[in-house]
Amino acid sequence: MIRLGILGYGNLGRGVEKAAAAAEDITLAAVFTRRDPKTLKIASNAPVYSADDMAAHKDEIDVLILCGGSANDLPEQTPAAAKLFNVIDSFDTHARIPEHFANVDAAAKAAGKTGIISIGWDPGLFSLMRLISNAVLPDGNDYTFWGRGVSQGHSDAARRVEGVKDARQYTVPVASAIEKVRSGEDPVLTTREKHTRECYVVAEAGADKDKIAETIKNMPNYYADYDTSVTFITEEEMQRDHSRLPHGGCVICSGRTGENKHTIEFSLKLDSNPEFTSSVLVAYARAAYRMNKEGMTGCKTIFDVPPAYLINRSDEDIRAHLL
Amino acid sequence: MIRLGILGYGNLGRGVEKAAAAAEDITLAAVFTRRDPKTLKIASNAPVYSADDMAAHKDEIDVLILCGGSANDLPEQTPAAAKLFNVIDSFDTHARIPEHFANVDAAAKAAGKTGIISIGWDPGLFSLMRLISNAVLPDGNDYTFWGRGVSQGHSDAARRVEGVKDARQYTVPVASAIEKVRSGEDPVLTTREKHTRECYVVAEAGADKDKIAETIKNMPNYYADYDTSVTFITEEEMQRDHSRLPHGGCVICSGRTGENKHTIEFSLKLDSNPEFTSSVLVAYARAAYRMNKEGMTGCKTIFDVPPAYLINRSDEDIRAHLL
Repeated sequence: MIRLGILGYGNLGRGVEKAAAAAEDITLAAVFTRRDPKTLKIASNAPVYSADDMAAHKDEIDVLILCGGSANDLPEQTPAAAKLFNVIDSFDTHARIPEHFANVDAAAKAAGKTGIISIGWDPGLFSLMRLISNAVLPDGNDYTFWGRGVSQGHSDAARRVEGVKDARQYTVPVASAIEKVRSGEDPVLTTREKHTRECYVVAEAGADKDKIAETIKNMPNYYADYDTSVTFITEEEMQRDHSRLPHGGCVICSGRTGENKHTIEFSLKLDSNPEFTSSVLVAYARAAYRMNKEGMTGCKTIFDVPPAYLINRSDEDIRAHLL
Repeated sequence: MIRLGILGYGNLGRGVEKAAAAAEDITLAAVFTRRDPKTLKIASNAPVYSADDMAAHKDEIDVLILCGGSANDLPEQTPAAAKLFNVIDSFDTHARIPEHFANVDAAAKAAGKTGIISIGWDPGLFSLMRLISNAVLPDGNDYTFWGRGVSQGHSDAARRVEGVKDARQYTVPVASAIEKVRSGEDPVLTTREKHTRECYVVAEAGADKDKIAETIKNMPNYYADYDTSVTFITEEEMQRDHSRLPHGGCVICSGRTGENKHTIEFSLKLDSNPEFTSSVLVAYARAAYRMNKEGMTGCKTIFDVPPAYLINRSDEDIRAHLL
């Protein structure tokens, strides 16, 4: 049994707990939290420890999955944890990946551990599809579309606007843009042409709704580059219609071999973004454990992992039944 | 530069030649043929040698791509070639993969070479998707659909029927079956429910068309388990409408994490089946070369290859731009 640890018990941590329970070769050995461990109720019977006590449990855990955020948690936590454990994270701040990779690599190599960063579906499975597509069809272009799905970062941004009590944002790919890409037209698409944003907002009593809508639509980085719709709803409607975290998207590569065209498409349709992401994290935790056993230490990404390491089946079995 | 060799100059061999020309880090160093080398005209300037003389060129080639058929050529050729070169093949006789793997593994290990078998899109990229889907969503089912596209095996089988001058067979997935799978219904589908077969036939003058159609439709292994249509056309129509080799298909995995459903779909739409397959072979030839340099000898499959080895870009570059 591979003994798994979780650091951070939010949506992602709960998803990892669920995915670990579904894996026959994995057992959840510990949940670490920055809250008071006594106050944290978890779904399984795993012991809960303070995040400050991780070092005391270093020999009880084969792989630690870091379930914190990319902005503030992972840049510190993953390198620190890699001194103690094999680690997996879902770091998704693209611009900072080289720096994060270097930090985790140094810590993991010094400790003889294996770390795999930026695992999930994007970065993650979508990255893998971009790489494979580019390798197979060098004369081609790849396009990534996200949605329809909830962006928690954009929801949070809308929630910070004055007069907003609650908000939920859906990223929506533009169907006609996807069709153009699928048809092999190789279109040049602006940010605005690829996705729209739908914002559902519960306003505070007496708030100026026009001003809220304008503020959201013009918010730099988050909304200004998109066609955004803002729809005001009641708290009851928010609870009833927008309490789930669906997501998805697709990577489409259109390429040529001389006069012949080829299209490669990978798409996901997910009822729960955090639960699917967690399932990917757990499969790569299995890989980290195995790669470490074989002496492959240091920081890795999805590009470095032989796929056979992901699954709880023998090489003979997968060659006979999945190849 | 990686020096590539080709054994067998049919559709696949010509595709490899084209894919090698499109790769900046690869040069075609030799084409080996069982025909008289003097009679073989090829598209590039690579030297053409007799297949009997491969051993004399063992130091001129880094990876040999075997472009013969799975029924008669590859079971002999790949293990024999693995004594001389790193090798790649597209062996697709599923039942014989364990035996073929063992033969290539023994030959390659003894010679310190690396062989990767069963590369292409199915087996190949579709196998990879089946593995990843099963690893990420253990509580799920995967389905593979092929087409619409030309099956050369089924075309050949129809061509062997008495009174048939020429034939072309298209494998067609049943759209309603795909929709059922996509919707997460987890249907149990018979062979007949998944695909139909369309056969276009040029009959010999005076042949009994009813008899031809009946013979094709009832042919065991090839047609009897499918709903097959047989359409008689002229030689001109065959030439005009059916001279290309398009193909494609999809792998769909529908799975659950508790009450939440998720769908993973990978699909291909290919103008030329042999040219796309060749492009995959060339990417994996690059991987075989690199894996051999790092001492990973013996027989491998797509499940064993770290994706980073497939592409002609540095690890730093792919982490910064594809992750």
